[in-house]
Amino acid sequence: MPTPFTDLSRLSLNQATTQHWSVRQAVEGCVRVGVPAIGFWRHKVAETGLQESARIVREAGLQVSSLCRGGWFDALTAEGRRKQLDDNRRAIEEAATLGTDVLVLVCGPAANRDLPSARAYVEEAIATLLPYAAENGVRLGIEPLHPMYTGDRSVIVTLEQANSIVQRLTHEYVGVVIDVYHVWWEPDIEAQIRAAAGRILGFHICDWLVPTPDMLNGRGMMGDGVIDIRRLRGLVEEAGYNGLIEVEIFNNALWEMPGDEVLQLMASRYLAHA
Amino acid sequence: MPTPFTDLSRLSLNQATTQHWSVRQAVEGCVRVGVPAIGFWRHKVAETGLQESARIVREAGLQVSSLCRGGWFDALTAEGRRKQLDDNRRAIEEAATLGTDVLVLVCGPAANRDLPSARAYVEEAIATLLPYAAENGVRLGIEPLHPMYTGDRSVIVTLEQANSIVQRLTHEYVGVVIDVYHVWWEPDIEAQIRAAAGRILGFHICDWLVPTPDMLNGRGMMGDGVIDIRRLRGLVEEAGYNGLIEVEIFNNALWEMPGDEVLQLMASRYLAHA
Repeated sequence: MPTPFTDLSRLSLNQATTQHWSVRQAVEGCVRVGVPAIGFWRHKVAETGLQESARIVREAGLQVSSLCRGGWFDALTAEGRRKQLDDNRRAIEEAATLGTDVLVLVCGPAANRDLPSARAYVEEAIATLLPYAAENGVRLGIEPLHPMYTGDRSVIVTLEQANSIVQRLTHEYVGVVIDVYHVWWEPDIEAQIRAAAGRILGFHICDWLVPTPDMLNGRGMMGDGVIDIRRLRGLVEEAGYNGLIEVEIFNNALWEMPGDEVLQLMASRYLAHA
Repeated sequence: MPTPFTDLSRLSLNQATTQHWSVRQAVEGCVRVGVPAIGFWRHKVAETGLQESARIVREAGLQVSSLCRGGWFDALTAEGRRKQLDDNRRAIEEAATLGTDVLVLVCGPAANRDLPSARAYVEEAIATLLPYAAENGVRLGIEPLHPMYTGDRSVIVTLEQANSIVQRLTHEYVGVVIDVYHVWWEPDIEAQIRAAAGRILGFHICDWLVPTPDMLNGRGMMGDGVIDIRRLRGLVEEAGYNGLIEVEIFNNALWEMPGDEVLQLMASRYLAHA
């Protein structure tokens, strides 16, 4: 077991955790509570404006851990696919402008019942984007999602799958993003985190609530669920990852709380459980 | 792709699909609609009485595809574990009395955050039960559940895991039960179904709805969701399974329909999609 954290120097607020806050509100909240980093979402950045968001976070002196999300490779037509790839190129540029070198990819969903083809196309799409990512100094982080999202979000649903793609692509601008919510159940998680060594671009935490109140927006604050977060943190660190740790919690109840309280709770739970 | 079915000779009604029907109602419904087999649940059998249930199904001339469920190995104390093992021995006896040689096991949940220990204990518990299962002529079917049930139902969540346990136990009375709902997302499902050859004790079908209305009771009728059921049936048959196919659908909306309509719909969807 790794030793508990005693400071917040590696903590990052993923903006999904404070869904109702703007970029400015989230940045200012982090500064007030002493959270040194933030992970952005594209739709939030778009609301504030890209350049303005970049200016706000730069002036506040926060680090930017990642931008969510690229990917969403579900088009079946050549035209649809071209548009999606172009949109991902914009996402790469946005990441660079915001000052992060990690774009998180959600790799799916399938457009029909043909999962094997959808999986093959995801890999092809990532390969297509890699030269542009490298040009912009932005790494593509494949985030395997929980298998319960196979039908509507991601066809990449295990760390093993993400690792396999990274190994086949052999490109220094691709890696994996590990979110405990999505992978905690994996029977061979120890081996898969070891296999990801040197390719871990991000580590996200939250908790799995029992019962889960909502499949999308029912994730829990660390300590409220059943995930052994500290053990997973230890495995990720043994694999060499010592970067920022994003707290990303989609939770309807949390979103109704005042943002400062959410950040304070997040910080104390991070110290107690991560 | 396997050829579509043209008759109902391999169809079985898992009793969960007609949740509000008693054993007698379900058996009589199967006879009316021409479904030749049924899979029972213990709590339903208990309501009607074990001997009475056995008599009803025998007199109706239906086959019994399986009994759900044994397992539920989550006790941490020696006393608690002894009680659960005894309860599983009763389940084995009930299966034999009902005229089926398959007891379906739900293998979990974990009692705390220690998943590795919970997984090890599940395997130990199954090993402990196997001599009694063999004595009674009842095989234990490890049914991996979907990973979204890791927190509250089953720590065995992939076919790969179930296969590994079966391989390690090397006992002819243990095998796997494959439910498309639980395993359709597995990236290496083809290989895992091949690996299960000779050990497949049951095949369950339903569909994955998008969106899923409820994590437990939001499963879909075949054809209403995104699972390529026929492809999975083909893989299971290539692996040598030609036994009964249970339709097991936990769905609140379906349970409000008249039972005969559910069975007729199930039969026509089975012919069209399985």
